[in-house]
Amino acid sequence: MAESKEEDVKVGANKFTEKQPLGTAAQSDKDYKEPPPAPLFEAGELKSWSFYRAGIAEFVATFLFLYITVLTVMGVGRAKNKCASVGIQGIAWAFGGMIFALVYCTAGISGGHLNPAVTFGLFLARKLSLTRAMFYMVMQCLGAICGAGVVKGFMKGPYETLKGGANFVSHGYTKGDGLGAEIVGTFVLVYTVFSATDAKRNARDSHVPILAPLPIGFAVFLVHLATIPITGTGINPARSLGAAIIYNRDHAWDDHWIFWVGPFIGAALAAVYHQIVIRAIPFKSRA
Amino acid sequence: MAESKEEDVKVGANKFTEKQPLGTAAQSDKDYKEPPPAPLFEAGELKSWSFYRAGIAEFVATFLFLYITVLTVMGVGRAKNKCASVGIQGIAWAFGGMIFALVYCTAGISGGHLNPAVTFGLFLARKLSLTRAMFYMVMQCLGAICGAGVVKGFMKGPYETLKGGANFVSHGYTKGDGLGAEIVGTFVLVYTVFSATDAKRNARDSHVPILAPLPIGFAVFLVHLATIPITGTGINPARSLGAAIIYNRDHAWDDHWIFWVGPFIGAALAAVYHQIVIRAIPFKSRA
Amino acid sequence: MAESKEEDVKVGANKFTEKQPLGTAAQSDKDYKEPPPAPLFEAGELKSWSFYRAGIAEFVATFLFLYITVLTVMGVGRAKNKCASVGIQGIAWAFGGMIFALVYCTAGISGGHLNPAVTFGLFLARKLSLTRAMFYMVMQCLGAICGAGVVKGFMKGPYETLKGGANFVSHGYTKGDGLGAEIVGTFVLVYTVFSATDAKRNARDSHVPILAPLPIGFAVFLVHLATIPITGTGINPARSLGAAIIYNRDHAWDDHWIFWVGPFIGAALAAVYHQIVIRAIPFKSRA
Amino acid sequence: MAESKEEDVKVGANKFTEKQPLGTAAQSDKDYKEPPPAPLFEAGELKSWSFYRAGIAEFVATFLFLYITVLTVMGVGRAKNKCASVGIQGIAWAFGGMIFALVYCTAGISGGHLNPAVTFGLFLARKLSLTRAMFYMVMQCLGAICGAGVVKGFMKGPYETLKGGANFVSHGYTKGDGLGAEIVGTFVLVYTVFSATDAKRNARDSHVPILAPLPIGFAVFLVHLATIPITGTGINPARSLGAAIIYNRDHAWDDHWIFWVGPFIGAALAAVYHQIVIRAIPFKSRA
Repeated sequence: MAESKEEDVKVGANKFTEKQPLGTAAQSDKDYKEPPPAPLFEAGELKSWSFYRAGIAEFVATFLFLYITVLTVMGVGRAKNKCASVGIQGIAWAFGGMIFALVYCTAGISGGHLNPAVTFGLFLARKLSLTRAMFYMVMQCLGAICGAGVVKGFMKGPYETLKGGANFVSHGYTKGDGLGAEIVGTFVLVYTVFSATDAKRNARDSHVPILAPLPIGFAVFLVHLATIPITGTGINPARSLGAAIIYNRDHAWDDHWIFWVGPFIGAALAAVYHQIVIRAIPFKSRA
Repeated sequence: MAESKEEDVKVGANKFTEKQPLGTAAQSDKDYKEPPPAPLFEAGELKSWSFYRAGIAEFVATFLFLYITVLTVMGVGRAKNKCASVGIQGIAWAFGGMIFALVYCTAGISGGHLNPAVTFGLFLARKLSLTRAMFYMVMQCLGAICGAGVVKGFMKGPYETLKGGANFVSHGYTKGDGLGAEIVGTFVLVYTVFSATDAKRNARDSHVPILAPLPIGFAVFLVHLATIPITGTGINPARSLGAAIIYNRDHAWDDHWIFWVGPFIGAALAAVYHQIVIRAIPFKSRA
Repeated sequence: MAESKEEDVKVGANKFTEKQPLGTAAQSDKDYKEPPPAPLFEAGELKSWSFYRAGIAEFVATFLFLYITVLTVMGVGRAKNKCASVGIQGIAWAFGGMIFALVYCTAGISGGHLNPAVTFGLFLARKLSLTRAMFYMVMQCLGAICGAGVVKGFMKGPYETLKGGANFVSHGYTKGDGLGAEIVGTFVLVYTVFSATDAKRNARDSHVPILAPLPIGFAVFLVHLATIPITGTGINPARSLGAAIIYNRDHAWDDHWIFWVGPFIGAALAAVYHQIVIRAIPFKSRA
Repeated sequence: MAESKEEDVKVGANKFTEKQPLGTAAQSDKDYKEPPPAPLFEAGELKSWSFYRAGIAEFVATFLFLYITVLTVMGVGRAKNKCASVGIQGIAWAFGGMIFALVYCTAGISGGHLNPAVTFGLFLARKLSLTRAMFYMVMQCLGAICGAGVVKGFMKGPYETLKGGANFVSHGYTKGDGLGAEIVGTFVLVYTVFSATDAKRNARDSHVPILAPLPIGFAVFLVHLATIPITGTGINPARSLGAAIIYNRDHAWDDHWIFWVGPFIGAALAAVYHQIVIRAIPFKSRA
């Protein structure tokens, strides 16, 4: 199934540059080659400093992410009047803005995942090895636990009453609603990650890696605007785990599976959508 | 009527580079040729995978657009106190931010319209064929209906009382006010789309397609800041249709024509303004 | 007085590239020549279509600017509870965001001034002719009057009680405070315009004109955050004039001089600061 | 310890380009050389106009920073109802937005520090001389004092009761909490400055200096969202000093050391993290 020259189809541009009919032999783009899939295991990377450095960068960035965001949530919760705080919208900015700034800072070191669901989606698309994916997820979870822990250190009393920024399904919604919200929310995020970092797009425009953190951060902000009232918004299992471990109450653990299953399903759907529908990779490799 | 070298007129730059007097023979810019208008019907594109892929991308993006935005509207409506929600400003961010992120993601696949009024404006400027325009509009409307439907699935009870994010003319305004607000609001959006994606500008600066989603998203945000109190802000017939079909009450349908007629008039005015005043295309082709 | 090679001094970069001692003969940068100052009168431009087109673009953009911003101000004023509106912060976003989007759209056509104070500052720096400066100011004022007039057409009753978005010195501040706030606020805006559109910077980085609208829009947003409580924030005589003419009450006219004198003084100070301190143009031309 | 080719590791890109094992001889990147460290004292720069001009630019920018931000804080404090002001979130935007706009404007003149903690961090990384660092810090503090002073001139009465935007540790937090919040907050800021202005990144992508102000401004915004309830957020000793001197009450001075010690520790940690972990400079120079 042929698919080529879509690099000519830009915002509002003339759509008539793509005349490749269905069913003809595939043409290869002159200036672009699909990178080979990452191997599952690559012994060499375990000996490279950049592998460990990438893990450290993921740890530090996830630490800072939880620190700033949970502290913002606590500040809004403590205020006698929501109007005397940065408000729920301020919480959404804290999550989205931190992802923007931290992806910008770590993209060149670790790829800037900061989220096991993003790592899982990119692993499914074979953008990184299983070894690296597992290492990143462990470092992300450790960073998240430490970040939430520091916030608890600052505010012992109110932390418990304010529920420590942990994710729950809110009163008035079913667990199915919460799971659905996490699936679609993570789909929005991981779909944006795939679109913004598309290797084919990179090939024709070298600025994308620099600009990509902006739509990715905005995607996180937007999902928070929509689903804070439903689940507090997870879409990041490390963030949910870190907050739950530090809060550590039964009701935090009862719904906890939703914040792993939902994001992983959403990320898998985004990987399938991007690789099969948008990039049509299986059809190309047959050609 | 001559018009040339305006590529030298930048923000705050010296304006004295354009000395072409009125009435001389037109000069052609050396590095730019106006692309030919798209044909009304192009049989070839119906056989290309990228045509159908573009329609799928419009469907998915409009689905996500309605899902996030209507869910945000519902969350604000449910809150006992507006200060305990993301507020009306948060709703405006949800609409504008989603357009930014989704145009960024789909620009390379479908052109990133997500809005029948944008498709109509670009069709009038002959940027795409009638076939493609009709296909996009149908996919946008289907995506919008599904997106609003998923939100209703999450919140059965409150959906009806909160009016489901449907567009109406608010109490205190006439239908004429609402129509005017939709016309000017859509003009702002489609004028920004034309300016940001101008093929002539692309010719001299290849970064525009990458940066264009930012002003386009901001235009949507700004029109919402101004006209949410009047109509709830349509400026996108697919968004208005999706919300109305899922809400499905008589008073949602009474004003519904305004959210098709207004956006289409606004888009047509923007196309006329850009093609005739800014690009002066009819005068050039006579020369 | 020598001044050269400052293009090597970037954010956080090594500062030790500039060893030109004071008092040596000036070196000319190899890749940059200061453009000659614009003549006061240039008969040729009166015969060019692009001159009139630029005026039309300034009119349309200033019209849309006042329409969106005054409508936002009215919406906040009408709300029974500020929390049920986009709030004062939403008003600041409307002003700053419209400047961002409209400068982006009109920069390639007219330079994207939209403000007599900006035009005045750039005229003082000899970036455009007196003829063009006067023409722009007239078109900006006409556009502003029409934009505010359309808003009044939408909301006859409340427009008068809400003071129509006109600028006054608020209760609790002296006229001197208001004048000072307008001077410093316009300095922030015009200083940002000069820095972001610096021709020397353009010479070494062609992306600046594309990115410039973002800091310019942010400057407008920030000045509104700070000075809405003092004067409602003018920093744009066309905006103040348009709102005052449509509102047309004595108390709107009593303070009106502040919103012309303040912005023009601020713009002149910014022009002096940029041309003399930052660019050191008088010292160079002596060398 | 070898570390090379990490410029291939972009957002979401294939991670398998870095196969340099630990312990092999270091390879030098072909297109990049670490700049030599700045000397502690450089007599030549004291004779250059650009040195003094940089100091003036730091003074003016810090003046404008304090003017806009303290005025915004005063406006929120004076409002009878926080909903009738730009709110706490508006204060966070004022701080972050001004840093974005001012870094954009002064990056090409002085490096755009505007903050003694940033200057200190860059000095530790040997990006500028001790002479220049001291000069910048003095100019930043003078600018901050003048900026806060002008705001006090506008609002004599309320300034005292509103505490003049000075930084304190809030009721309910210990001095240790305040110090910790300043350390981590400044780490976030200075880490972003290092990442965004990385000379190695510059070497492979010339756009970074232009885009860097955006994540830097966002970092300031985000730290304010999180720590305004704890200390009012310093992370900038000049800002804290300027507000304290103009307010000048005992309780402003009691906690003042926190807003110098905290930011300097945070900046030092960020410099160590970036130079040793991310850039691995000590290991490279041994190779």
